[in-house]
Amino acid sequence: MSLSFLLNPTSVAIFGASQNPEKIGGRPIRFMKEMGYSGRIYPINPVRESVQDLPCYPDLDALPEVPQAAIIAVAKERVLETLHRCAERGVKACVVMASGFGEAGEDGRQAEEEMRAIAASSGMRIVGPNSQGLADFNTGAILSFSTMFIEEPPEAGPVACISQSGAMSVVPYGLLRQRGIGVGHCHATGNDADVSVSELAAEVVLDPKVKLCILYLETLQDPANLALAAERARVRGVPIIALKSGRSPDGQRAAASHTGAIATEDRVIDAFLERHGIWRADGTEAMVQAAELYLQGWNPTGKRIAVVSNSGATCVLSADAAERYGLDLAPLAPQTEEAIRDVLPDFAASQNPIDITAALLTDSGLFGKVLPKVGADPNIDILMIGIPVSGKGYDFERFAQDTADFVQAFGKPVVLAAPQRFVREAFARKGIPTFETEDGAIRALAQFVDHIALIRNAIGGPVRPVVEAGNGRTTLDEFASLAQVAGKGVRVPQQKICTTVEEAQNFLTGCPDGIVLKANSPQIPHKSEHGLVRVGLRTPEEVARHFSEIEAKLEEMDVAFEGVLSAEMLSSGHELVVGGHLDPVFGPVVVVGDGGIAVEAMPDNCLLMPPFTQQDVAAALSRLRIGPLFDGVRGGKGLCAEAVFEAARGVAELLSAGNVLAVDINPLITTTDGATAADALLEVRA
Amino acid sequence: MSLSFLLNPTSVAIFGASQNPEKIGGRPIRFMKEMGYSGRIYPINPVRESVQDLPCYPDLDALPEVPQAAIIAVAKERVLETLHRCAERGVKACVVMASGFGEAGEDGRQAEEEMRAIAASSGMRIVGPNSQGLADFNTGAILSFSTMFIEEPPEAGPVACISQSGAMSVVPYGLLRQRGIGVGHCHATGNDADVSVSELAAEVVLDPKVKLCILYLETLQDPANLALAAERARVRGVPIIALKSGRSPDGQRAAASHTGAIATEDRVIDAFLERHGIWRADGTEAMVQAAELYLQGWNPTGKRIAVVSNSGATCVLSADAAERYGLDLAPLAPQTEEAIRDVLPDFAASQNPIDITAALLTDSGLFGKVLPKVGADPNIDILMIGIPVSGKGYDFERFAQDTADFVQAFGKPVVLAAPQRFVREAFARKGIPTFETEDGAIRALAQFVDHIALIRNAIGGPVRPVVEAGNGRTTLDEFASLAQVAGKGVRVPQQKICTTVEEAQNFLTGCPDGIVLKANSPQIPHKSEHGLVRVGLRTPEEVARHFSEIEAKLEEMDVAFEGVLSAEMLSSGHELVVGGHLDPVFGPVVVVGDGGIAVEAMPDNCLLMPPFTQQDVAAALSRLRIGPLFDGVRGGKGLCAEAVFEAARGVAELLSAGNVLAVDINPLITTTDGATAADALLEVRA
Repeated sequence: MSLSFLLNPTSVAIFGASQNPEKIGGRPIRFMKEMGYSGRIYPINPVRESVQDLPCYPDLDALPEVPQAAIIAVAKERVLETLHRCAERGVKACVVMASGFGEAGEDGRQAEEEMRAIAASSGMRIVGPNSQGLADFNTGAILSFSTMFIEEPPEAGPVACISQSGAMSVVPYGLLRQRGIGVGHCHATGNDADVSVSELAAEVVLDPKVKLCILYLETLQDPANLALAAERARVRGVPIIALKSGRSPDGQRAAASHTGAIATEDRVIDAFLERHGIWRADGTEAMVQAAELYLQGWNPTGKRIAVVSNSGATCVLSADAAERYGLDLAPLAPQTEEAIRDVLPDFAASQNPIDITAALLTDSGLFGKVLPKVGADPNIDILMIGIPVSGKGYDFERFAQDTADFVQAFGKPVVLAAPQRFVREAFARKGIPTFETEDGAIRALAQFVDHIALIRNAIGGPVRPVVEAGNGRTTLDEFASLAQVAGKGVRVPQQKICTTVEEAQNFLTGCPDGIVLKANSPQIPHKSEHGLVRVGLRTPEEVARHFSEIEAKLEEMDVAFEGVLSAEMLSSGHELVVGGHLDPVFGPVVVVGDGGIAVEAMPDNCLLMPPFTQQDVAAALSRLRIGPLFDGVRGGKGLCAEAVFEAARGVAELLSAGNVLAVDINPLITTTDGATAADALLEVRA
Repeated sequence: MSLSFLLNPTSVAIFGASQNPEKIGGRPIRFMKEMGYSGRIYPINPVRESVQDLPCYPDLDALPEVPQAAIIAVAKERVLETLHRCAERGVKACVVMASGFGEAGEDGRQAEEEMRAIAASSGMRIVGPNSQGLADFNTGAILSFSTMFIEEPPEAGPVACISQSGAMSVVPYGLLRQRGIGVGHCHATGNDADVSVSELAAEVVLDPKVKLCILYLETLQDPANLALAAERARVRGVPIIALKSGRSPDGQRAAASHTGAIATEDRVIDAFLERHGIWRADGTEAMVQAAELYLQGWNPTGKRIAVVSNSGATCVLSADAAERYGLDLAPLAPQTEEAIRDVLPDFAASQNPIDITAALLTDSGLFGKVLPKVGADPNIDILMIGIPVSGKGYDFERFAQDTADFVQAFGKPVVLAAPQRFVREAFARKGIPTFETEDGAIRALAQFVDHIALIRNAIGGPVRPVVEAGNGRTTLDEFASLAQVAGKGVRVPQQKICTTVEEAQNFLTGCPDGIVLKANSPQIPHKSEHGLVRVGLRTPEEVARHFSEIEAKLEEMDVAFEGVLSAEMLSSGHELVVGGHLDPVFGPVVVVGDGGIAVEAMPDNCLLMPPFTQQDVAAALSRLRIGPLFDGVRGGKGLCAEAVFEAARGVAELLSAGNVLAVDINPLITTTDGATAADALLEVRA
């Protein structure tokens, strides 16, 4: 694959090579020499004979061969001409370090457009501009000028960090290296004019040494490659953690009144990452906090946690933390409790959480006696050991060995919480992930088991083709919108456009529960606020009066009269919303949730990416605040989740054709038996 | 005060004194000798002449004086007799270390009862039993056997840790000491038979050296002393952080159908702590994470944060974190932006968050130029500096000095986020609180400013007298309950108990909007589930039919017929709940929130402790999910918060008399103009 020339090139040329190993054009040469790069390094600098004890060449033509990779460390103004020459000569891949391009303004954006053109026409791949560079510590190909590799010396290992930002490539690198974890890849791609973080990730996860992949993204314009990376990673068993920043401003923007706006960009990204089994970290800590757990090869099948501690307080606090982070403090199997009761003193707790008490001081073997019982318990998936106090009189080396034996025998994930460093170090020497507090330990454990479950349940699949953004959009009236929705199998009320009072009165005769009269114009989206919705009309006189009032109101508002929408009264039910829109990058997204005024004032809805199953929709509904309504409250029957799924599928089908841009069914009147779209609004291409 | 004999006694006797400095009866002697205790130490042990080079005495009578304090390190069986002898001889205070009392069963509970009796009759104060002991590092009175003081050597300082649990007294101690923070007090009180954590805290916060007080509580049976401690602490400017464990099981228990149950114990504790300005930590990390900030003497007046970093990524991540933890990333004043634009390069960001970019490499003075502008900005209360990457070429000592100058000049709180240890150390040397990540830095900063605001807004006041738990309780019927509620000024519907159809038909004539008929029996709390509520009756015929049906249904259910409750139909409104109960420890608590079926299935309510103002109720309502309804949605008028306050005040008044145990107004039909109690249920003493 073409990106391998960036990670393992046989030769690298450096334009702007510097004798000074602290300069941007000098550092990569220094790094490659120090870090065992076995390929050929060709400094290019017209004013020098040699650079850092290597022969230096005046230009590309003077090299003894065409280099596979080139580092472009020249001034911004000379980048494009250098790229053209590299492409012409057959260089396979370049890294452009200069900044001042797309991030600086229109000129820069045009220059990036030209880079993409060079890449497309020549096949040469370009990383950057504004890239800190790539570093593969397995091959020693350090095409990077990061200072972090001096401060925190590298050690090739199982983690890969890939980021647009230079800082956020080396921050997780630094935090992991400080904890003694090896990092094999540390790449910063910059503005992603050609090669994106996602595409590079799709290459890196194929490296057999990589066991965990950490991404930092500022934009996500290349979801197809991220889906591919996730697919490959799942095949290889490599978890991917992504920190996508800018959640807050994106999440706030545009709280407009239809579901297209509710389905904000940021929630689309949540749904996309979840679909592909990628864990979304919410900050720097979550990128690295569970790293040790990912590297053990553990494969937990559930989130039922046991806690064993020599302190009752730690037991209680761990129970609180388990609930806080969504783990289940499961009851032990009866035979386990009995077996533990046999080995613990009378005043100790043989229930989960298991408080072995200060008796540990007189019997250092208590962990070794208790842990195998917990390991054999079919009700327990994971374990936390809490040792808040240790020291003289405590044989913590033995506790660590007993814990290592537990892992060896049962393969169940285990973490230690201990505030004292020497206790943590004893456990770390046995390969156990360690934390200062029960809070940190359980937070990391919860992330790990939730992420493994996310990967196991990932739907994956290719990204749906992106729809060309059309020029214009237009809104259909309610009658036409409901007809479209009905065409996809969603139940709608019996309805008719009536241009005369008599027509409406005739319509009433077929509706024993009465009718509703509404204005029917795309010019008036919020009809009820203008008094243009009249409900519960049961007599011909009522129909005549309200019909005339609506007609008069429309005239007053200067809206052309094209009839009044008459619809049968629906029996009451819970008002839901089902809607969706076409995201320009990700394609169709669908929103389901609480409807009516709740949509804006008290939003309680969630986003789904098609295709989805009835089970997916039911699971999404159950996570909402209104979730209990689908189970039934006070012993009653629940709302019909199947009907909500049918409506959501109908919306997805409308959007998948490409000419419907947004759909809003609000309210979808939902009962225990079904659901009916009482109002709908479609936006379509003009 | 009597507890000063525990913290600064002139003499200490040790019952069960041991020559072995690693034994429970030996360690306190070793600690006092090593840690500068200036009083007299009297080992008591009938089988030894000397203990750890001190003269040893056979019993209390042999001592040259009556000791002010005594450590009771004898076996469980000999504790009571020893306490009796101490009390008789005039010892002022004892610490009982043996375990196996209240935590072990009924015998132990009786022994604790006897300890309380000894304390009450003699005036001698007793800490424990099951106490790890008290340690005051200022006076050197270490009446404790903790091993932690060996592993992490003490240094007297501004933090006090007070806990029931031994482990949770030394865990925060250890975490703070590892960070170089001095801890002056480290006390573990055990079972709190006499002296409670709260009472000890009320003494410790008077120590002029104490600047931060950290509590760990497993029970909170002594709120009056905690209120006193908080009062004194507020006067002295000492923040109190409390970790009250057991949140999860308490919070889950008893999800019964009336508000007495909704107002769970744990939420009462939340409300109590908030009222007294005590920060509730949710785990070990939150106990200590912001310690450095509390010790600076900072007094922030708002939560508007500025972020300055040399990395754009850190700027974006900090904005996300600020939102996550509820801080306001405020816009800078225009003059500040202009001033910053003047000193930063063109491509840097002069808006908040301020990205000074890698230009820092060429101008090490950039922090020094930018920070004074931020300091002078009236829109900014607090500051985070993020340096994700530093090292060679970065003059981070100067950055630290510039930051210290900022603090000196403006007194605004500032924290550093930097993953590299040497950067953190440079700032720490200048007294700046430092964190590895922006997430940790902003989380701590948010806790600090929120806590200071909590203290500033604390209502405080004494704890209301505890009501004797009566023997029996009885439920009033709806008519009587509504009458009681109406008596406190809450609006109720026009209503009447009608024993005949004719009476009900007569009642109808006075109700133009129709009437409701309901069964009226305390035996049937969920009337509507039994079809015993008939609404919207407008004709004498309807009234007659439904009256007879209710009568028949009651007969079928074998409930004595005492008439049917007739009430006027209310115009529609939002269904709220207002209720409350008498907590046995804290007195009256009141609940307000969303009503109807939402109460159980989708709870959205909060708890208030009387007395409260209209402003308090409005603030509580605004924090609920339904909060926006009180502001008005879609341009409409909001629900009447004043009427909800009147109802809540009425409930508080009913409860304060002492014979009403629980009140449940559900629904309180609330409109933009007022609120009416459509149903109510009172529980009163039998």
